Amino acid sequence: MGRYAIGLDYGTLSGRAVLIDVATGEELASSVYEYPHGVMDEALPNGAKLPPDWALQHPSDYIGVLANTIPAVLKESGVNPCDVIGVGADFTACTVLPVKADGTPLCFLPEFEGEPNAYVKLWKHHAAQDKATRLNEIAASRGEKWLGNYGGKISSEWAIPKLWQVLDEAPQVYAAADRWIEAADWIIWQLTGVETRNSCTAGYKAIWNKNAGYPDDAFFKALDPRMEHVVDEKLSRTILPLGSRAGVITEAAASLTGLCPGTPVAVGNVDAHVCVPAVGIDGPGKMLAIMGTSTCHIMVDEKELQVPGMCGVVADGVLPGYYGYEAGQSCVGDHFAWFIDNCLPASYYEQAKAQGINIHQFLRQKAQVQRPGESGLLALDWWNGNRSVLVDADLSGVMLGMTLQTKPEEIYRALIEATAYGTRMIIENYREHGLAVEEFYASGGISQKDPMTMQIYADVINMPVRIAGSAQGPAYGSAMFGAVAAGKAAGGFDTIFDAARALGRVKDTVYTPNPENAAIYDKLFAEYRTLHDYFGRGENNVLKRLKALKAQSKGNA
Amino acid sequence: MGRYAIGLDYGTLSGRAVLIDVATGEELASSVYEYPHGVMDEALPNGAKLPPDWALQHPSDYIGVLANTIPAVLKESGVNPCDVIGVGADFTACTVLPVKADGTPLCFLPEFEGEPNAYVKLWKHHAAQDKATRLNEIAASRGEKWLGNYGGKISSEWAIPKLWQVLDEAPQVYAAADRWIEAADWIIWQLTGVETRNSCTAGYKAIWNKNAGYPDDAFFKALDPRMEHVVDEKLSRTILPLGSRAGVITEAAASLTGLCPGTPVAVGNVDAHVCVPAVGIDGPGKMLAIMGTSTCHIMVDEKELQVPGMCGVVADGVLPGYYGYEAGQSCVGDHFAWFIDNCLPASYYEQAKAQGINIHQFLRQKAQVQRPGESGLLALDWWNGNRSVLVDADLSGVMLGMTLQTKPEEIYRALIEATAYGTRMIIENYREHGLAVEEFYASGGISQKDPMTMQIYADVINMPVRIAGSAQGPAYGSAMFGAVAAGKAAGGFDTIFDAARALGRVKDTVYTPNPENAAIYDKLFAEYRTLHDYFGRGENNVLKRLKALKAQSKGNA
Repeated sequence: MGRYAIGLDYGTLSGRAVLIDVATGEELASSVYEYPHGVMDEALPNGAKLPPDWALQHPSDYIGVLANTIPAVLKESGVNPCDVIGVGADFTACTVLPVKADGTPLCFLPEFEGEPNAYVKLWKHHAAQDKATRLNEIAASRGEKWLGNYGGKISSEWAIPKLWQVLDEAPQVYAAADRWIEAADWIIWQLTGVETRNSCTAGYKAIWNKNAGYPDDAFFKALDPRMEHVVDEKLSRTILPLGSRAGVITEAAASLTGLCPGTPVAVGNVDAHVCVPAVGIDGPGKMLAIMGTSTCHIMVDEKELQVPGMCGVVADGVLPGYYGYEAGQSCVGDHFAWFIDNCLPASYYEQAKAQGINIHQFLRQKAQVQRPGESGLLALDWWNGNRSVLVDADLSGVMLGMTLQTKPEEIYRALIEATAYGTRMIIENYREHGLAVEEFYASGGISQKDPMTMQIYADVINMPVRIAGSAQGPAYGSAMFGAVAAGKAAGGFDTIFDAARALGRVKDTVYTPNPENAAIYDKLFAEYRTLHDYFGRGENNVLKRLKALKAQSKGNA
Repeated sequence: MGRYAIGLDYGTLSGRAVLIDVATGEELASSVYEYPHGVMDEALPNGAKLPPDWALQHPSDYIGVLANTIPAVLKESGVNPCDVIGVGADFTACTVLPVKADGTPLCFLPEFEGEPNAYVKLWKHHAAQDKATRLNEIAASRGEKWLGNYGGKISSEWAIPKLWQVLDEAPQVYAAADRWIEAADWIIWQLTGVETRNSCTAGYKAIWNKNAGYPDDAFFKALDPRMEHVVDEKLSRTILPLGSRAGVITEAAASLTGLCPGTPVAVGNVDAHVCVPAVGIDGPGKMLAIMGTSTCHIMVDEKELQVPGMCGVVADGVLPGYYGYEAGQSCVGDHFAWFIDNCLPASYYEQAKAQGINIHQFLRQKAQVQRPGESGLLALDWWNGNRSVLVDADLSGVMLGMTLQTKPEEIYRALIEATAYGTRMIIENYREHGLAVEEFYASGGISQKDPMTMQIYADVINMPVRIAGSAQGPAYGSAMFGAVAAGKAAGGFDTIFDAARALGRVKDTVYTPNPENAAIYDKLFAEYRTLHDYFGRGENNVLKRLKALKAQSKGNA
């Protein structure tokens, strides 16, 4: 009798299921379901227009993932559903929705189907910025100690600003909402019939702290008197560490998915954080970078330190028993895409076409033969602001060293190098504040597809770079958490650490620093760092003044 | 009986003649002759290869201009050759050649036709950089006072480094050369049979000073003992102010050109400087920018000041009786061309094609609707180093403010604005060192073809911009000098000032600063200036270190 686990990964545009063999880690089947409603950023399903900066989703799409992908992987693999010992799920975050006490999303109710605030607010919903700004002002003026756990600033993407927006714009929705819950926890509720809250999203997105709990009621009252008791009224003080079992598959969920009733289900998790055990990381000193359109850097440590510029430190936030640290870069793959969309001459497209390769391959072909420093270019990777360590969305990109001989492929490579310098800045910042970073792992699309970039990273950070073994890192990690929810007695694992050691996988290829390149990149990074501080730490605030002039000029339109 | 003058303008790839009516300034005919040998930068006519950085020309091409264009304008206009009262000519500079005592170029002699150093060294011949570097070191160590007249540095493009290269590489050519002469003076010699030297090229390119003369023999001896008496052996101490008559058309020149023997000919001049009277400038306070691939800024004043960063101050160098000041920007039109060649997406070419306009027009259409500051971008215009006021070829381009929303047309406009800031820097530098700049004139291709750029210049420098009336500014100016060579009694003018007042022409269109735009550009220029000093005056020499790394990396290839 085999032992299998299913991992569910909810992304921005689709959800995916992967079925793995718990004994070997082999991925036996996978299935993807595109959300029929996608991202609703222009109109509701009934046609009602949305204002700018809104990004909603429809929870029925999430149910569709369960109903379609789980039967598909069971069928493709030929596995007996009762041999699936556990299920795990991860989600984008903070992706959050108002529901009734039984878990019914408010947007499912006829009276709210035309009300934007009744829908799921997707992670990239940015229409609560005024609330976040106000929240940060109030927290700072009150000297709230927890602010330091988030690098000094709460994002507009997080749970409390988004809920405050609901209260402010649609008090009837706020009143009707018995619970305000992360989609990661809501989907687990749908499978198990039990409301649980996981330590990762609670800690990173809802200002919960294992030792101190939530901000006190007085703080919420200071935001809005109607929110004074928001934690007890809409959230929950019961937070389960990652690796916990949330419950088991209900009869209803079994008939929806084809799984057997009683199958254990892990608490919800976040797409980036769930990748950590998937590459075999089981403790401190090992950084994982999840590299896609943006990059997320995850680490754990035994110590709780307030490191300036990190996104957050959360007990049990990544692996149970450890403090999880998250940092990030706002613009990585997006950086390269911008360049290709806006700065690439027609002749390059023609040449790529003539060679029968895509434009990224064509550019890499030209960029990979360049030696470090050869282009004379240096860039600061702030095209989408700086998430870590400056935590400043008002910064913008800088590039130096252009001449009349500068070629597109040199600019392309300089942008890649800039993101590597940004990663090194995050690593050095951790080290300078007492956190060891001894190993470096990468997952995400870029890590799988772009050897040149990964070698540049190895050379710039001067550490070997190990690559995630699974191309579907989050789903694979969620399946591992599913196997932990099952427990060792049921053929799974008692802890995620055991699962990480048994099933965590990296590729055989390790990108090893070239010492000559590393020596040159040391010099270039020193230049990057000087400019990073000059433009980013107040010595010359020209980037902010340019942004202010831009806003003023657009305002005068 | 009409009175006419002919101006000859020798460019990099062709020579042009313009015939004007001296009474009205009307341009009655013009003719262009492309140099059959063009720029020889790869091989000699006999096929012998040239090393990198060489750029030669063939003097027979210059004769071809006389033989073809003068007959053509006489024919086209129907003017009686004897009604042409004077001829003037301007040339690129420093474009210089070795000749025998009778003016025969050494490269015309069979024994030297395979010898690269026997040909004309074109202005952009850059193979004497090692000589220029050494010359500057020696001059600095000897405390040569004239160095301050050239912003502290002699360029590799100038006459002495180029002659030193001849001596070093081909001493037999050096020995055989009775004279080392600017092409501007040589072409006048061909017309008049008389060797003359004009104050403009002598002053700006051959380190001659009206009061102090040339550097003394001891300096030249310090360069190379064989050059101790170079001034008396190869150059000349007789220098004629601009506006002087060099001589008259000889019988031989008359049969070559169709002109009448005895027609007065002005001393040679330089293409940029000769444009000054063509726009009517007759005294101090009025700056002319000649805007093309690069920009040259010319002014005159009564005072001789050593202004840091100018290209040179020369008595009689622009208008007789005044000190002529020259400054420049290394990269203007080239800047925009680089962008179009290297950074423009294919979709823009397709859209331009669909609209039936060229790519510059398409970009301007998108750039001209932007308000100042709206893009959030700021650039330093150093893609080809900085000619003034930093005089530093090791600097390179900088751009700030890019976001994922930045569009190609915004970068394009930022590059245009950068060149306008560079011009404002030159103006402010003059003002800070005691030179008034009260009016601003523009000639050259950009001034004629690009109203958006000219309006940006007006807004950035916050001065009205007047545009040269003739699209062929240099040839028109040379014709005016021809009319001065004739003198008033012969139907011309006694001075170039009289000619400037009578014939200098600007267009009716004046670009007037928009006060709102000017106020925003004041703020942007303040940012430019801070960064200009930060990157250009030693506070952060990152650009030089990047260049050194680049050279080192290429060296390791």
